[in-house]
Amino acid sequence: MNFASDNWAGVHPKIAENLTLHSSGFVAAYGASDLDKSVEKSFADIFECEVSVYFVATGTAANALSIASFNRPGGITFCHQSAHVAEDECGAVEYLTGGSRLSLVPGANGKMDVAALEKAIAKNPAAFVHGGQPMGITLTQVTEAGTIHSLDELRAVSAIAKANNLPLHMDGARFANALVSLGCTPAEMTWKSGIDILSFGGTKNGCWCAEAIVVFDKALDAQMPFLRKRAAQLFSKSRFIAAQFEAYFAEDLWLNNARHANAMATGLGNALAGSGLARLYGTPQANEVFAILNNNHIERLRGAGALFYDWHAPHDGSVRDEETMIRLVTSFATQQSEITNLIAALKTKSI
Amino acid sequence: MNFASDNWAGVHPKIAENLTLHSSGFVAAYGASDLDKSVEKSFADIFECEVSVYFVATGTAANALSIASFNRPGGITFCHQSAHVAEDECGAVEYLTGGSRLSLVPGANGKMDVAALEKAIAKNPAAFVHGGQPMGITLTQVTEAGTIHSLDELRAVSAIAKANNLPLHMDGARFANALVSLGCTPAEMTWKSGIDILSFGGTKNGCWCAEAIVVFDKALDAQMPFLRKRAAQLFSKSRFIAAQFEAYFAEDLWLNNARHANAMATGLGNALAGSGLARLYGTPQANEVFAILNNNHIERLRGAGALFYDWHAPHDGSVRDEETMIRLVTSFATQQSEITNLIAALKTKSI
Amino acid sequence: MNFASDNWAGVHPKIAENLTLHSSGFVAAYGASDLDKSVEKSFADIFECEVSVYFVATGTAANALSIASFNRPGGITFCHQSAHVAEDECGAVEYLTGGSRLSLVPGANGKMDVAALEKAIAKNPAAFVHGGQPMGITLTQVTEAGTIHSLDELRAVSAIAKANNLPLHMDGARFANALVSLGCTPAEMTWKSGIDILSFGGTKNGCWCAEAIVVFDKALDAQMPFLRKRAAQLFSKSRFIAAQFEAYFAEDLWLNNARHANAMATGLGNALAGSGLARLYGTPQANEVFAILNNNHIERLRGAGALFYDWHAPHDGSVRDEETMIRLVTSFATQQSEITNLIAALKTKSI
Amino acid sequence: MNFASDNWAGVHPKIAENLTLHSSGFVAAYGASDLDKSVEKSFADIFECEVSVYFVATGTAANALSIASFNRPGGITFCHQSAHVAEDECGAVEYLTGGSRLSLVPGANGKMDVAALEKAIAKNPAAFVHGGQPMGITLTQVTEAGTIHSLDELRAVSAIAKANNLPLHMDGARFANALVSLGCTPAEMTWKSGIDILSFGGTKNGCWCAEAIVVFDKALDAQMPFLRKRAAQLFSKSRFIAAQFEAYFAEDLWLNNARHANAMATGLGNALAGSGLARLYGTPQANEVFAILNNNHIERLRGAGALFYDWHAPHDGSVRDEETMIRLVTSFATQQSEITNLIAALKTKSI
Repeated sequence: MNFASDNWAGVHPKIAENLTLHSSGFVAAYGASDLDKSVEKSFADIFECEVSVYFVATGTAANALSIASFNRPGGITFCHQSAHVAEDECGAVEYLTGGSRLSLVPGANGKMDVAALEKAIAKNPAAFVHGGQPMGITLTQVTEAGTIHSLDELRAVSAIAKANNLPLHMDGARFANALVSLGCTPAEMTWKSGIDILSFGGTKNGCWCAEAIVVFDKALDAQMPFLRKRAAQLFSKSRFIAAQFEAYFAEDLWLNNARHANAMATGLGNALAGSGLARLYGTPQANEVFAILNNNHIERLRGAGALFYDWHAPHDGSVRDEETMIRLVTSFATQQSEITNLIAALKTKSI
Repeated sequence: MNFASDNWAGVHPKIAENLTLHSSGFVAAYGASDLDKSVEKSFADIFECEVSVYFVATGTAANALSIASFNRPGGITFCHQSAHVAEDECGAVEYLTGGSRLSLVPGANGKMDVAALEKAIAKNPAAFVHGGQPMGITLTQVTEAGTIHSLDELRAVSAIAKANNLPLHMDGARFANALVSLGCTPAEMTWKSGIDILSFGGTKNGCWCAEAIVVFDKALDAQMPFLRKRAAQLFSKSRFIAAQFEAYFAEDLWLNNARHANAMATGLGNALAGSGLARLYGTPQANEVFAILNNNHIERLRGAGALFYDWHAPHDGSVRDEETMIRLVTSFATQQSEITNLIAALKTKSI
Repeated sequence: MNFASDNWAGVHPKIAENLTLHSSGFVAAYGASDLDKSVEKSFADIFECEVSVYFVATGTAANALSIASFNRPGGITFCHQSAHVAEDECGAVEYLTGGSRLSLVPGANGKMDVAALEKAIAKNPAAFVHGGQPMGITLTQVTEAGTIHSLDELRAVSAIAKANNLPLHMDGARFANALVSLGCTPAEMTWKSGIDILSFGGTKNGCWCAEAIVVFDKALDAQMPFLRKRAAQLFSKSRFIAAQFEAYFAEDLWLNNARHANAMATGLGNALAGSGLARLYGTPQANEVFAILNNNHIERLRGAGALFYDWHAPHDGSVRDEETMIRLVTSFATQQSEITNLIAALKTKSI
Repeated sequence: MNFASDNWAGVHPKIAENLTLHSSGFVAAYGASDLDKSVEKSFADIFECEVSVYFVATGTAANALSIASFNRPGGITFCHQSAHVAEDECGAVEYLTGGSRLSLVPGANGKMDVAALEKAIAKNPAAFVHGGQPMGITLTQVTEAGTIHSLDELRAVSAIAKANNLPLHMDGARFANALVSLGCTPAEMTWKSGIDILSFGGTKNGCWCAEAIVVFDKALDAQMPFLRKRAAQLFSKSRFIAAQFEAYFAEDLWLNNARHANAMATGLGNALAGSGLARLYGTPQANEVFAILNNNHIERLRGAGALFYDWHAPHDGSVRDEETMIRLVTSFATQQSEITNLIAALKTKSI
């Protein structure tokens, strides 16, 4: 009953297999091998356009270096107030950009309110040197609240970005989960909706460690090889990332993994709601379920060995005294039996 | 005939196997799993003392964050003039420390001349604010010149470090190759010789990507968790590094890999010297051979498909006109047949 | 009728005189002259304790380097959401600390709400590496809202600082204005209330350019000479700052300047309120008046040549449609006649 | 007998006067006053072209922010091995660029050897990501060795800069001294010789604190307002710098000050050489004299109250045992009597 996070799961057997397959023989280091190049080509095929692809070690690296690609002195990047870059990356963006700032924009459901975004940008007009200067916007798909921007919502943000001449970055740590939920193409969810640069995550969806920066806007590409190398993010045996992505893309493994994870979340949500002992906070859109339970029930679940994290309660009164909001995450590896066991444990009074 | 670099090799089968073995099941992310902890314990056993261990993505990261652990404003770290941190890391040290500097110390055979080191340190006395302040020393074992510091040589540097109250870092990208060459214990080659913090590399010796910072001096340890996370170097599925190291240490695989690589270098060196068509530049001490060949012979080798890099000639007159110095690197994966073929190709006149 | 800012004023004649007095003769550069040392001694006398004093070019430098003295990787400094460091310094704190962050704490009247401050600190417990780590607190005295922390309010913040083992910095760009308003001693308003390091501003109160970092906590002092020099803030002809401070402190010029400025603000506030054409937003506590006027009246004042800035309206409904909040700043140089003229202009209907 | 440095001198009376003249009245802060604009216009007149002018607090700031204007990730700026930016600025360049590097180029007489410069640039071709990328060149006029680049020498460096598409910065801390020595125009010594951006120093030549970045290449200008503000180098009462420059330029004060200082150095050099008790190291070209004296004679001079610094001896054998090289600096304030007294003291045997 492990719903702690999708990064607690292992790797999909096909990815493990492919790593083994590529483990022997000499190939060029630092991303120059045929396999590296072939996988880069896969990205271009998937996104239906020319892209530059940079493997990095972590999603945090992908985010920070993407933002660094549009770095400016006194620069401000706009993000949701609970964005991963703001809350969970130990200041990597500020550090790896040498001190640029994040402006935290409020908004429901993990999405920036577009009026609040416009207001935040307008607060620092280009000529007001004291305030610094806007330099870009970053949004997260799937959001930290487990929700998904519709294509219209993405376009609303990118319209603001274009109007203010600001690059737009997408943190796609759970890119595949969002994609299969929307049922659109990768191109539609990115550059066709105005995304200029993307953190493409494979780790949470069945890889060991497979994160890539995908650059759509060539203006952001010029310095990226140096940004990555200088940040100590250029792997020598780069093929071990490429091999993961090769298997990840083959036979739609990435999409199937995401579909499975999402379906498990939907099933889990339904089961919890149907138990009468939990209320959902929002309908699961991807692979995360947010639920409100009585503290006794939470204790009971943990007593039975279930793993999940408490989540910060929203300030909308939906969580009562003696209740807690929890987050349950599913993944490619989640089994239906774990859900069944969880619900059973929830309903079982301790003796 | 691939002698380009030890990072062109793949991974040892036992490491590939162990990765597969650990690829399923849920475990705690971010280094908190039992496997992570067990591997950390292995480091303590190997080094015969309490150590803190931090997995990172690259040797560059290990070096830069090690140096960042003793960062000071206006700080200067002393290294050999051809050190990897100075020549091949795109300024990662300077960047990830927010602008500290490297002072390049001359010295033969890739080792800092101790008198020159003392002089360089003395140039910036603590009270002279304009010059900045010494903050540490870093040396490389195996050096960039393929040589190895004897224990006495290590102690000569650490004596200077202690006398000046400076932490001493070792870049051990080829740690195992040096260790088996010296025939001493890991403890003797590190903390017993005054090393305070170590970049411990496994990638070049048969892993995919297994680099660790090993901290001996607790004073350098306090901020390391934040230094690593902020630098986007904390893996979520950290066990994939741990699993590599587990296999690496099991049954002395790491030592055997290094012994093989070193033996291949010795054999290659002897064969080259014996061919009458190449002169060695120094006797191979680890897994690198530096040789001086007539340009025609180099062309002939490359024409036959051999891979290796030209190396910058020393300024001691040993490389004549129409000659070039080349570097040939062996690894755990180097086969005797490659050496045999190389020598054959060298001797075969083109038709 | 110039109420734009206290930094639009010139310098007090006694300060200009003293500069001229010290303009000839050779003295040691970089702060080593007798005058520098004598002025440093004055700071110790004024603060009734040993202090270290570092002249810097701007208040922004004093703030950023003070905060840099307690810099930590992934570090977070807590400040009021409208603090000068957050709004008006172009990211200098983030930049000069190499990427530390400011956490914006809400609170009425320009002062952090202490409960909100505690909550913000608690959000990032030391063990949660992903969030980073609290590293210090900064407050502003006089605040950006023109208000003054009472000694009790200062102590409430410093109690939180001590409880969390966090250094406490005071941005004292208008230190003297606050001091004479509270009627306490410099010691009481600083270290006796738990302040560890202070930006002491003279520029806004009659100097050309006289800003100093005053360090009370020796632990924050060790690296400051290097922090300042590296940030290009060490003046060679340092005596030109010292000479300003010498005159500033002589015969209580600094206190008298501040008393004059504050009295002018009180008088201006009373005159505006008495005009029946403006409402004050808060009672002036130092040298700033915040007033709400009908837009027509504001236009009238500007038409008559009055200078002042619009201010962002509070979100408490106090500013109605067709009204604007403005800020009027007085200084040592403000004349009663300017106030009289302003009120006259306000009452004069355009023809 | 004070020959310690030109920054030990005070300020010229006309500059002190002009400061007093501008000390009253309200004017716009942050460089927006009429005086600021008028002085900026003077720079354009002096340099016979459109320029952007940014006042900063120190020469170190001018150098570091100039170099920051062409900052690139993994960037390398080439300078002479004894350049002020390399030796005497506590790493400000590296810090304020967030970690770019200086490549130290050898060369006689404080000037980069052009062949060595070309070789250093060639060492890091654009495509070699590991080494980083060249980003600019900086030279010093007057050099740290007291010498002056001829226009031909400047053009030789700028030809290399252009050929490699690198911006060229001049550290002109002693700009006026060089200018009057060459007898050319400011335009000839800068943009007409390929200089793209200049640190223009007034402090050492009779001002309190008057340093400016002068930008010739508009491409380097775009981000400078933010670079300066973020680095805490934007003065609020900016007119106090403008007032100094106004007087500095009026009636050729700056040129006359420099001519006086240079003449004093020539006279001092001749007097020392003529004493038979000192050998000059190079003929004085600006306002610095380098002389080699017997240690007893140096002691004698210091015993008589003379002030000057020991200088690091060149490695060319010109300084014998029991001798030391010293540096003596003259300035606008140096009197002939000081020279006379120095020579007298040198010749006077202690009793």
